[in-house]
Amino acid sequence: MTYCLAINVNEGLVFCSDSRSSAGVDQISTYSKMFTFGTPGERQIVICNAGNLATTQTVIKAIEKDIRDAAKRNVLNLPSMDEIANYVGELNVARQAENTGGGPMYEASFLVGGQIVGHPPAIYMIYPQGNYITSSPDTPFLQIGETKYGKPILDRSIRPETSLQTATVCALLSMDSTIRSNLTVGPPVEVLAYSANSLNVDRRFRYEADDRDLRRLHSLWEQKLRDAVHSVPFNNWLFNWEPEMSQEQSSNPANQNQVPPTV
Amino acid sequence: MTYCLAINVNEGLVFCSDSRSSAGVDQISTYSKMFTFGTPGERQIVICNAGNLATTQTVIKAIEKDIRDAAKRNVLNLPSMDEIANYVGELNVARQAENTGGGPMYEASFLVGGQIVGHPPAIYMIYPQGNYITSSPDTPFLQIGETKYGKPILDRSIRPETSLQTATVCALLSMDSTIRSNLTVGPPVEVLAYSANSLNVDRRFRYEADDRDLRRLHSLWEQKLRDAVHSVPFNNWLFNWEPEMSQEQSSNPANQNQVPPTV
Repeated sequence: MTYCLAINVNEGLVFCSDSRSSAGVDQISTYSKMFTFGTPGERQIVICNAGNLATTQTVIKAIEKDIRDAAKRNVLNLPSMDEIANYVGELNVARQAENTGGGPMYEASFLVGGQIVGHPPAIYMIYPQGNYITSSPDTPFLQIGETKYGKPILDRSIRPETSLQTATVCALLSMDSTIRSNLTVGPPVEVLAYSANSLNVDRRFRYEADDRDLRRLHSLWEQKLRDAVHSVPFNNWLFNWEPEMSQEQSSNPANQNQVPPTV
Repeated sequence: MTYCLAINVNEGLVFCSDSRSSAGVDQISTYSKMFTFGTPGERQIVICNAGNLATTQTVIKAIEKDIRDAAKRNVLNLPSMDEIANYVGELNVARQAENTGGGPMYEASFLVGGQIVGHPPAIYMIYPQGNYITSSPDTPFLQIGETKYGKPILDRSIRPETSLQTATVCALLSMDSTIRSNLTVGPPVEVLAYSANSLNVDRRFRYEADDRDLRRLHSLWEQKLRDAVHSVPFNNWLFNWEPEMSQEQSSNPANQNQVPPTV
């Protein structure tokens, strides 16, 4: 499995990906799942992938070949992010079918994001079927792969006005939660923070499993979560969060202890 | 879908369940998924369920009928928690097959826990196939249904020495995270905290969607998570968590910014 996410906030974009590739628990290997393409000052494109490794590799190779061949349509000359998303979707469908005839086990998904000069930054999620969705102010992040463990922290923290730094921390925490709870997602962790309108990628980091900063973030976050749990005011078994409320609460039927009769 | 969890700590057991039953997004209803059976001072048994509603209802009805009929084997006379888990597993398999012949869409899972006098408290997860597992000091909680969203908080917070109160808070937070991120899990939320060796269930609560305490916990937790995210020391874009470390880190190749060449 895999976990990749992309965040679109007012200050810019954040991408984060793990590097574990597994075909069963006895066949685990490490592959980067984050790829960047760009022309400084004109456009920067980031692509992350999940799914069948043979499919994702041939899609990325096709993207690279189209750039080398200066193909009529490639990620460095298409005029909009929409068209780049569509192009990656077409490659995805074509490569799934090419050697295998397609089918669920050959499926792959992609996150595509970045900025072209004169356009706002944007992120897209490309489905195995080649169609795609983008983010919105109400849904400022997209995920592919093993998405559930890391979704609560994003749901609660990411808004369009969230700073790029905070969004980067949240992306790493979302990844850390997923790695902690699921064996098929693992380091190295890659993270890329793109400042809107910079049209340069100058903040891309790769954290190995034993990376000191990543381990520090992991234990710091565990400690903060434990502290937060312990700081929840919890008196008299969930009835009275605050002692002075007990009177008011006891008159609210919804707060009564409703114990069904024991059989 | 459903989310239920059971926690086994030294001080006792915690059970938590949602109440949403859905057959597609246009057919949603509310059913309690937590059932208690017991003889005060002798045993207390808690059962939570997930999966096909027709299956879970017939299993619970069969458990209740066996008690009414004083059947040779029922949850109030079986001599150990192991045998109760086995009994619920047998009912589960039999009821899946009875009207339908079985198959994945008729499957159900159960959490069974409690205590019989003279035995320690215990929790079990019963699979659709009727077999079951229990907890251990290394794995002090079990989950059924939509388990992934709420797993990180449990992984990080629950140890055998965690207090029953803290475990109850964590169970509610795990449920809150799941409800926040997944539409198929919803209130009312039921929570039951059983004190080891009490052989009585005197702490069972049910929170409606608009419950003041539950909403307070929700917003308090969101605020604490946001505060925790903002308090992560984050200087100079992930390189220097502390300024004085920059020298040391810059000599560690694993911490270098490894930007692959842009194509």
